[in-house]
This record gives sequence, structure tokens and C-alpha cells, in this order.
Amino acid sequence: MNVVGRSVPRVDGPMKAIGQAQFTGDLALPRMLHAGVLRSPYPHARLVKVDASRARRAPGVRAVITSSDIGRVQIGADQYLLPGERVVYLGEEVAAVAAVDVEAARDALALIEVEYEPLAPLLDFRMARGAPAIHAHTPDNVAYQVHMHFGDVEAGLASSDVVQENTFLVEASYNCFLERHVSLASYDASGKLTVWSPTQSPHFMRKDLAENLGLGEGDVRVIARLTGGAFSGRNSTLPHHYLAAILSRKTGNPVRLECTREEDFVIYRGGPAMEVRVRAGCRRDGRLQALAVEALSDAGAYIARQQTYIYLGGAYCSFPYRIPNVKYDGYLIHTNNPPSGTHHGGGIVQVRYAVATVFNSLARELDMDPLELRRLNALEAGDITASKMRITSCGLHECIEKAADRSGWQTGRGLGVECGGAASGGRSRALHDSASAVIRVNNDGTAILLLGLPDIGQGSNTIMAQIAAQEMGIAVDQVRVVSADTETTPMDLGAYAQRGTFVTGNAVKDAARQVKERLFEAASELLEASPQDMVVENGDIFVRGSPGRRIGYSQAVSSVQASERGEQLIVTGYYSSPSERVDRRTWEGNMSGAYSFHAQVAQVELDRETGQARVGRVVAAHDCGFAINPQSVEGQVEGQAWSGMAQALYERKVMNGGQIMNPSLIDYRLPTALDSPPIETIIVESHDPNGPFGAKECGEGPITAAAPAVGSALQSVLGLPIRRMPMGPEEILEMLDG
Amino acid sequence: MNVVGRSVPRVDGPMKAIGQAQFTGDLALPRMLHAGVLRSPYPHARLVKVDASRARRAPGVRAVITSSDIGRVQIGADQYLLPGERVVYLGEEVAAVAAVDVEAARDALALIEVEYEPLAPLLDFRMARGAPAIHAHTPDNVAYQVHMHFGDVEAGLASSDVVQENTFLVEASYNCFLERHVSLASYDASGKLTVWSPTQSPHFMRKDLAENLGLGEGDVRVIARLTGGAFSGRNSTLPHHYLAAILSRKTGNPVRLECTREEDFVIYRGGPAMEVRVRAGCRRDGRLQALAVEALSDAGAYIARQQTYIYLGGAYCSFPYRIPNVKYDGYLIHTNNPPSGTHHGGGIVQVRYAVATVFNSLARELDMDPLELRRLNALEAGDITASKMRITSCGLHECIEKAADRSGWQTGRGLGVECGGAASGGRSRALHDSASAVIRVNNDGTAILLLGLPDIGQGSNTIMAQIAAQEMGIAVDQVRVVSADTETTPMDLGAYAQRGTFVTGNAVKDAARQVKERLFEAASELLEASPQDMVVENGDIFVRGSPGRRIGYSQAVSSVQASERGEQLIVTGYYSSPSERVDRRTWEGNMSGAYSFHAQVAQVELDRETGQARVGRVVAAHDCGFAINPQSVEGQVEGQAWSGMAQALYERKVMNGGQIMNPSLIDYRLPTALDSPPIETIIVESHDPNGPFGAKECGEGPITAAAPAVGSALQSVLGLPIRRMPMGPEEILEMLDG
Repeated sequence: MNVVGRSVPRVDGPMKAIGQAQFTGDLALPRMLHAGVLRSPYPHARLVKVDASRARRAPGVRAVITSSDIGRVQIGADQYLLPGERVVYLGEEVAAVAAVDVEAARDALALIEVEYEPLAPLLDFRMARGAPAIHAHTPDNVAYQVHMHFGDVEAGLASSDVVQENTFLVEASYNCFLERHVSLASYDASGKLTVWSPTQSPHFMRKDLAENLGLGEGDVRVIARLTGGAFSGRNSTLPHHYLAAILSRKTGNPVRLECTREEDFVIYRGGPAMEVRVRAGCRRDGRLQALAVEALSDAGAYIARQQTYIYLGGAYCSFPYRIPNVKYDGYLIHTNNPPSGTHHGGGIVQVRYAVATVFNSLARELDMDPLELRRLNALEAGDITASKMRITSCGLHECIEKAADRSGWQTGRGLGVECGGAASGGRSRALHDSASAVIRVNNDGTAILLLGLPDIGQGSNTIMAQIAAQEMGIAVDQVRVVSADTETTPMDLGAYAQRGTFVTGNAVKDAARQVKERLFEAASELLEASPQDMVVENGDIFVRGSPGRRIGYSQAVSSVQASERGEQLIVTGYYSSPSERVDRRTWEGNMSGAYSFHAQVAQVELDRETGQARVGRVVAAHDCGFAINPQSVEGQVEGQAWSGMAQALYERKVMNGGQIMNPSLIDYRLPTALDSPPIETIIVESHDPNGPFGAKECGEGPITAAAPAVGSALQSVLGLPIRRMPMGPEEILEMLDG
Repeated sequence: MNVVGRSVPRVDGPMKAIGQAQFTGDLALPRMLHAGVLRSPYPHARLVKVDASRARRAPGVRAVITSSDIGRVQIGADQYLLPGERVVYLGEEVAAVAAVDVEAARDALALIEVEYEPLAPLLDFRMARGAPAIHAHTPDNVAYQVHMHFGDVEAGLASSDVVQENTFLVEASYNCFLERHVSLASYDASGKLTVWSPTQSPHFMRKDLAENLGLGEGDVRVIARLTGGAFSGRNSTLPHHYLAAILSRKTGNPVRLECTREEDFVIYRGGPAMEVRVRAGCRRDGRLQALAVEALSDAGAYIARQQTYIYLGGAYCSFPYRIPNVKYDGYLIHTNNPPSGTHHGGGIVQVRYAVATVFNSLARELDMDPLELRRLNALEAGDITASKMRITSCGLHECIEKAADRSGWQTGRGLGVECGGAASGGRSRALHDSASAVIRVNNDGTAILLLGLPDIGQGSNTIMAQIAAQEMGIAVDQVRVVSADTETTPMDLGAYAQRGTFVTGNAVKDAARQVKERLFEAASELLEASPQDMVVENGDIFVRGSPGRRIGYSQAVSSVQASERGEQLIVTGYYSSPSERVDRRTWEGNMSGAYSFHAQVAQVELDRETGQARVGRVVAAHDCGFAINPQSVEGQVEGQAWSGMAQALYERKVMNGGQIMNPSLIDYRLPTALDSPPIETIIVESHDPNGPFGAKECGEGPITAAAPAVGSALQSVLGLPIRRMPMGPEEILEMLDG
């Protein structure tokens, strides 16, 4: 294999490096209007009056929409666009304007007269159960709950020699992608709505827009643009997408709606504040017996798609360990805070951070090396977990060994360890987890690979080009990738749940195989040999064992598509993951076709004067099955080690009275390059039987271990269990003082 | 059949009607530059010095290219971009500039210092043979010649009872599309060139750009935009396409090059000036025995693709008549005029105009009704012409009858008649004449039809949607057409030679059939019946004879593509026309898969005072095989009747010293709506066995008869054979005076 397994440079690298890459905000369509949104200044208020008449007459204004203009447009399980009677969070959309430029739109917004009658807001999710209901349909303010119980946790705890428990508070976070939320919509006279937007799933965005705006699926086209960061944050169809579309339909002009950074903080639906209570028990020999987790999540005013994240926290609370008795109770709680969603590692990081800390307490209680505790309980290939995940390949032991070895592991000394892993796709959003890929071959032997999977910066276009080139037997620069447009590229559910390499990669491999087979058939006619005896190498097709009997790749192509048959090499590949849909009653089922594994060792240094903890070094070993592009795997692992550090020590939305107090990249204080530790990545390859060339995911496994590893290291420095995330100077000084 | 055969409104009609349709000139890319071209003010001159140094330093200028910057870039059989030593026509490209705006580019052009040494120009193509050679490789200034000889013309003339001959002069013409020539090119850091342009063939433009700029086919993407008129004029890759691409490669910015109207007249390569000598003979009973045509064409300075047009003049000189002995000698002659190309009906109209006039003289000599002469000699189904065209379907007799009937035909009285017809595609530009079409089915049962065929205003997107919908059994508005982009849509040779309906239409039908078959297979499983017994109607699939056993179309779709197999309904259809490649020695071969037939009667009124002839009425009967969209056929026929009138009476480029003296829409004096006669269209359906639903072309057949019919009518009014085209007031007064 000479194309996969190599660190091929990103196919889109040069364009991004020199500033040629075009993002949604770079687009300018003829007659394009700019939109602005009027947002509630109260976390909870009755709308007494919304009068847009002055705004409608303002210069440059082409349309103003309020609740009474659009009627009831449902845009989520429990949300309607532009509510008419009551706003339930600070920043909720009340009206929108389309005007000839951004300034005219902003000026018009100031002319909309809204009379609010402020209502008492409910802001602390830990006090919300039983408080006056925010929504009539959730009288207890519990928006959603998940209860998983595998084995018998109470019996497991009772039979444990050591039991530890603790309760953790995690603060809300923001994802800090550099590209702010933006959507460009154009509704034309043929009744078609075209939307350009950075999105992780043009497929689902099309479905959402069609369903909620009363359009046919075929009447909506979503073109995924390059994204300036995604991290689960481009996975939903949000109010601004609907507003731009409705304003375009109303005006007949294309409408761009680009959020300010402050708006971005509000609408982003980032990591929720959570309270996580963990109880865990093990035998004296370190074998884990039981794990009980209760997770309370501040859903904010609407639940949107948070069911998935509160579910994932449960599904992965014990992963990647063998624990026979597991119980998880997850709750989404309504407050008058902006709706939550997910930060990178959605739902899982918070829970695993809490669980890791309790595991460390168990180890300390047993006087056992915390790494040894992990090793003892690590999953292995062939295992079936309590929730019926089937482990078809597993390099976890190797990850632990190598991370320990390379980091010079020793208990204490500011080192912390945690393991993790993640699904390679899954069925949370659809009845199946499938993808398709189309390959068109040019007469010169190069190929065009059409993908519905957007490259959201994770490099999937490069990976897919490598898979296609390897399978077809051509060079990677002979494959041009086009992604992702619901009209011209084939169906793909999207870039979420780390499904790209595993699911789409298999579809690409299937398409490439068909191309190769057709060319072998053509070559075998020209070479008078059997198609089964054909081999392709370095752009030539030849007869196995007779390398002299060969023809060029493009010659074989020509014999197919320059023929009188009119045939063209346009081939569709399919793949459907063998994952199962998890049973919503038992919560059992093999949720993914393959699982990655990860072990991370972090070293933390603490300035006891200022309370500032810093990560000094990270060693991260990841089992991605097979590294189709090793540098790309390293990039993923490094990014997540860094992001885990940021979540553990830095990131928080400071909330006050329902308002985000630090809605700017300066005030949010994300760590910078100067705060970044050296990160050493070790690639472990367990060769999954279902993965394309054995590959599995590497886009979320690392982060499930990263923040916990940093937390564990800090715990080891402090000698005390930590109970907060992030652990900023304030929290640390408090502990040191306490 | 409830979808084809109906005058479905244009799918792109509303967008064009309200101004939402976007043309190339409407596009604005980030960092886009604007280009200007410096052109030779002499028809023939040596380039002594080209100094661009001041221009390069001018404000806003990003790049200047001259011959020495780009080296030898061949862009046609006998043409190189930006010649370094000699310019050979007035308007030839000498240098180009890319700047931040059009004004900066124009200002910089004025700063380029060029020293010319004027050379004697050769301007009259009739005097050019034997004059000093313009190009060393064509010492006699004959750029290309075609000699066809079927049967024995001299024997045929000798055995004729009546022989007539005449010589005709046709002036050069311009095509007057409203959208001027424009190209937008973006060469990016990944080494890919993307070009947006109104083009009749993105496929060939990609091939041309790749070959001549030294790029791989896979490195070039051509996106055909809407065209504001094409008429064969968007069929070549012209200097401005190359210049925009090279300037983009040089700057790294997108570059737009939009011609002024004056430049458009120069670069358009319109209808050539021609001299046509015709000899024809027939028996006393009116049976045509022999036709000899000699056509001299002013190729201008380069031949470009004019070989095709001088060939077509020969291939159709006797069409649609049975003439056993035919001889054609065609010559492309070099002059220092701008290179010619084709007007609508390229090559054929000029020759058929001359032949028709001589046929009228034969009829007059025989005292025979000129319509009767045509009827007597008309081709019939089953005929094989002297050049081996196989007539598989033919409604010519019906066309003649109906045109005569509806026009109240009577010899004289200002009425003129001529017949014509055209190929439904052919192999002039490739070894095969094939097309492919991809259909993707949405879950709601609607479909996306991906076509490499551009809709150049002829309405092909609508026709193809009808064909797909009819074959799949759904409504036409359930099919969305996407065309034409070399990267995301399948291969199609392009919209030329009237191949769309016949060739691409068959590919669409093939794709739609495959979709239907797959859905029948799925439905038969659900309905427990055989796939052969399935019927689709009005969006339901049911068992033949048991209309109660039915499922919805979208239900069948869902059962395929919402399944665990991951299958998606993405289907590619192919078609290769049974046309033959004409043998370049014998000029024999069945050049097309099917031929249309046409008969047109025009009535001309003459103001003997002013010499102004006006067309009072046209009756046009066209055999298009089957009218998939009758209104669209009518539109085609009307447009061509009108264009024929314009060519016969109005259109000419006034040339003086190698310069076009009337390069504006005002001075060119195209007739306006007020000059348009009532045009009555009669659709004749001969149901071609190979056409999709029996359909053949309707995009060029009518015009081959239109100008000749007007000329014939004028001849009948004047009572004298006319010898010029156009016959403007000046020519008519000269005849009346003479």
C-alpha cells in the first residue's frame, strides 16, 4: 500500500495557507441583502407589544419579520421561531430585518419597539426541579431524562471492597470557532431555497429546513461551505438559518445573516453546565464492580438536540472499562439560560472527568497505581460491554503500555492518566448509518470523487482521496474531491459521531473497487487475459506474473468511455455500518460499527502562589485501527489533547442573571499557543475488520480522555479530589486555602 | 403520456422573467480582478516593440501579459495567443492586463507602448488566392478545402433538360446575442483552474483549456452559466477564455474578462462573407439531376473551427432533396479580416440560400410551381442520400402540404417557399456522439437530474425534466435539473449540432428507466407481485390489473434508500447515437442518428420607393419527430423564421479596411419586434424510431429554410434572381434600377 498509511499533505492545505479558501462570509451574490436580529434583553419576559412599523419604513430596509408575520414555525422539538408571547432566554430572537447593508439592518433593529413585561427568571439548574415551570409541557422543568441500568449497581457496590463517591460541578463552555455563525439563503422564483452555510450535515440541514418551512425535500439545496471550526457546533439547524431563508423568501433576494461574536456565544449552544454525581466501587484487587452516575444538565430554555448528549454521557460513562454493573441517570433541566448543546466531546467529557476523579480516589484508597487500575479493567477485543457494544478490535492495552512507557509513568509527580475512546459513527440521527460516494473518471485517468460528507477541517477530503486512490491504484493527486452539496453530491448523513473515515470511507472504497473492476474488465479484453489476473500499480494495469503485458491506466479508461457504447465511468459506492439502533427502553445495542481506544498521560505544574495550573507535557496513544494519514491522526490527537486541557483548566462562560458576561474571544480567555504543552502522539493500529484498510475514528476518542487526564494530574499534584471543571486559579486557590 | 407532448412552462422561466437568473457577469468572487485587452489597430502589421513596463507600475494593476510573458500558447489549429511578431487582423490580442477594476485595467492598457510597422493587408477573400501569403503554411492563402463528389455532376447536368447557374455574394454577419462574451477564471493554489462562462460545451472548453495551457483534464473545471444567446457563437474556446485563465494563474486571484460590444463584434467569429456559385439541372418533369456548388468563404486571419462549417455547407447543399449527382467544392480563404466562424445555421444557410434561388430559376424556366418542384424531389423515409445519410423518419411531404395549405400557397404573389432540415447530433467534434445523465432520487420521491448538457436558452432543462418525469411516472415539477459543470455533472459533449433532445434525451430516458425498474423491483417485494406487472401512474405504483394493490412512489423510494443496505438511488444513463463518422476522403456516411425536416412559406412585401422589403407573414411546418414540448418547438421555429428573415434582409457587418464599421447593436440594425411578421408554426410528427418518444431536433432545421424562403419570396416579387444576402434597400434599389 503506497497511498494510505502515508502523511499526504492536505488537499486543501495550500488554498487555506495562502488565503484563497472561500468561506460563507466571503460569498457575495447579486442583489444580496444583509440581515440583523433583534434579541431579547431579558432572560424571561412577556412580550406586550412588538411594533415594527417604523423599522419597515427605514431607509434601505427590504423586510422586517416578527412573530405575527411568520406565524408558528416550529424549529425544534420544543422551539418556535420568533415567539410571539414570551421570551425565555436573554438573546432569544424577537424580530429580524433584511436591508441593503449591515448598518441599515442594525439601524432598523433599533426602530423596532418592543414592550416587555419581565418575569422572574429561573437561572440555577440545580434549583429548577420543582420551581415554577418555564414551559407548560414540562411542569417539573425536566426536559428529558435517560435512565440506564445494566447489571445491578447497588449489589455491585455492596459487593465492592472499596467505594468512593463525589459530586462535580462543570461550567458552561463555548466552542470558540474562529468563523462566526453565518448563513446565506437564496429563495428563487422556481420555488427553490438554496442555502450556503458551514455545516457538519448538509443532509440534515436540508431535511430540517424543508420540514419546518413547509418545502419539499427536493426544493431545498444546502451547500456546505468550508468551516472555520465545527466541533459539534455546526451540527444543528439554528434560528439564523431559518431567519435568512424566510427573509429571502419574503424579499426574493439572497439574504446573508452573519452573527456578531456576542450573538455567536448566545446561539452557539455550547457545552452545558452540569452537575455529576459519581459512585464507584471495586474489589481489593482493583477490579471495578459498579459505577453509578447521576448527571444533571442545564439545558437552558429549549432542549434542541441535547437528548443525544445526555444519552452519550451515559453510554460512555464506563467506557473503555469492563464494569459489570452500571447505572446512569441523566436529566436535562430547563432554565432561562440560553439553550445548551455541546462542546467538543459532547456530554462524555463532563461525565468521564467526574468518573476519572473517583477512579483515582479508588486507586488511592487501594494504594494502587491509577494506571494499573485502568490496565486491570481495560476492554479487550472480543468483549461485549454491559450495554452490548461489541468490541471488534482493541489496542487499548497497547495504548496504555506505550503512553506509560513514553511518559516515564510514575504515580504522582504531577502525572495523571485516563483512557477513552469513541464510536466510529452511529445511528443517533437516523434509522441507518450509511453513506454513498460517486466516482467519475476523466479521460486522462484522473478521477473526481463526489462526496456528501463535508470536510469540516478534519481533513476528510484528503483521507477520502487517499482511500479512492489506493483502491483504484492511482496517485492521490489524481483524485479531486468535491464535497458537499445536497444537489450535486451523493447522500451522506454528515460529519458527526466520527463517522467519516469508517462509514464514508467504506463507501468510497466500494466505489473505487467498482471502478477498478470495470477497468480490469476492459484491460483484460485488451490484454487477452482474465479480469481476475489483472493488477494495477503506479498507473499501469498488467497481467499478474507477466509485467510485460501491460497498458496505461488512462488507456483502459479510454477503452471504456471513448467507446461507441457511450459508457461513462460514473460509479456509486454505498456503505451501511453494521451498527445497531440502540433500544430506547433497554438502552442496549451495539451503537457503532467500531470503537477507537485511547490512553493519555498529562503532566501538570502548579504555581501555588497564583493558583495557575499549567500542562507541562502530554503523551497520547490512540488506537485508530489504521492510520490512513498518520499526520492527520496526529493533528486530531494533538487538537484534542489541547482542547481537553482547555476544558479542564480554562474554559467557562461566566453567567450572570442569564447573561453571558465574557462573550468575546479576549474575555473568554481560551489558552493561546504559548499555553500549549508539547504533545506526543503515539499511533496504535488494531486493524478493525470492518474499517476501510482497518481504520477507525480519531476525532473524538482522544478528548474523552484528555480533560480527565489533566484533571487526574492536577488531583495528583493537589493530593485531593477536585470537584470542579474548569479548575482555574480561583478554584485551585480555594482548594489550597481550604 | 401525460408529461411529454405537453407545453410545460420553462423550468427556468420565472427566474429569468423576474431578473433572478444569474449570468456570468453577475458573479463576483472575493479578490476578483478585472481584465482588459490591448488589440491591434492594424489589420496587418509587424510588432516592432511591445513595452508594458509603465503599465505594470500603474495603480491598481496586478498583472500585465504580453507575448514575451506567456511564450507560445497554441489556442487553435493555426493560432497562438498574443502573437509576438506580427498581428494579422484588426482587433487581434496584443497584451492583457488584470487590475482591481475595469477602469484601472483600461487606463493601464493605454500605458502599454506598442510600435507597429504596418504591412499591406489582404482584405478581399475573392482576390486572395495567389496574393502574398498571410501565413507561411498556407502559401496560396487557402486555409482548408473540401471536395465532395457523389455520382457524376457533369453527366447529370448534361442529361438535364434545364440547367441554371448563378453566383451569390453573402456578407459577413454577427450574432447579436445580448450577453457579451465574458469569462471568469480562478486558478487556485491546489493547481486547479475553474472557469465560469456561458458556453455551449463545457466538456470541450475543459479539454481545450487543459490541452493548451498544459494542465491535466482533471485540473480544469468548467461551469457553464446561463447564456444570453448562443446560436453557435458560444461553441469555441476563444482568446479571452485563455487570457482570463492565464491572468488568474499569474495573480492567484479570480479574473473576469468581459468584452465590450465592440470587442464582441471582433472576437465573435460570426458568419463569414461567402461567394457561392451554383449550377443545377433537372429533367423537364422537374426531377433534379445534378447540383454543383462552389463556396468560397472569407475565413479571416485564422481558421479556428471553420472546417466544420465549410463542410456542413457541402453536406447540406442538396438536403432535403433527392439529387443523384452532387458536387461541392468548399474553400476557406485567409484574409486579414477578423477570423470568421458561424452565424445561426452555420455554413448551411448561405449555401442553401444560393441553391434555392437557382431552383426557383429552374422552376420558372420549366414554368413549374416552385413548391411543386420541391415536392417532386423531396426525401422520404427509407431514402439513403447520395452521401449515405439514412432517412429513418421523414415528414417532409406533410410539411410541404401543410405549409402550402395554411399559407394559401399560390405561385407568385410575393410568396416564396423552401425546405430544409438538420441533423439531430453528429460526430463532427468527437469519435462518438454520446451523453450521460445521472438521476438522484430524494426521499420524498422527487428527483435531481444532473446533466452535462448546458441549457443555452433553448429550453433543454425543461425538455429533459419532461423526459425524466414521463419515464419515471412522476410530475415534471418533481424533477429538478442541475446543469452543466464538468466536475459535478456527467459527461455530455455539449449543446451543438442540435444533439440535446435526441442524444442527451435518450441518456435521460435510459437513466429514468433504470430508476423505474429499481422502484418496480422494490414495489414488487412490498406488493408481492412480479416486477414485470408493475405500473406507475400519477405518483403511485400498482399491480397491473389490480389498481387496489398500490403504494406511493415515495414509499417505494424509502424502501430502497432508507434501508439498512445503505443503497441510494443514484443512476447513470448513457446513450450513444447510431450516427457514423463521415469518411474524410469519400465524405460519405450517415452523419446523424436522425434528421428533421422543414418547409417554410414566406410572404414578402416590397416598398419600391425605399427598396425596403418586409416579411408580411411566415408559415413554417417542422417535422421534429415528436414534440416533447410543443410550445418549445414553436419557440424554436419562430426564432429561426425570424432569424432567417434577418439574415435574408438585414444583417451584415460593414467592413472597411479590415475594420467593422457598425460594431454596435444600434448600427448593426437588427430588425426589432416591430419588424417581426406573424409566424405560424405547424408541428409535424414523424416519430423517429431512435428518438426519445420519437423526437428529433428542432433547433436548426427551420433556419436552413427560413432565409431561402424569404429570398425566394423576394425573387418572386422582383421577378429576377437575387444574388446577394442580405437584400437590403440598397441592393434592392440597385436591382430595381438595373
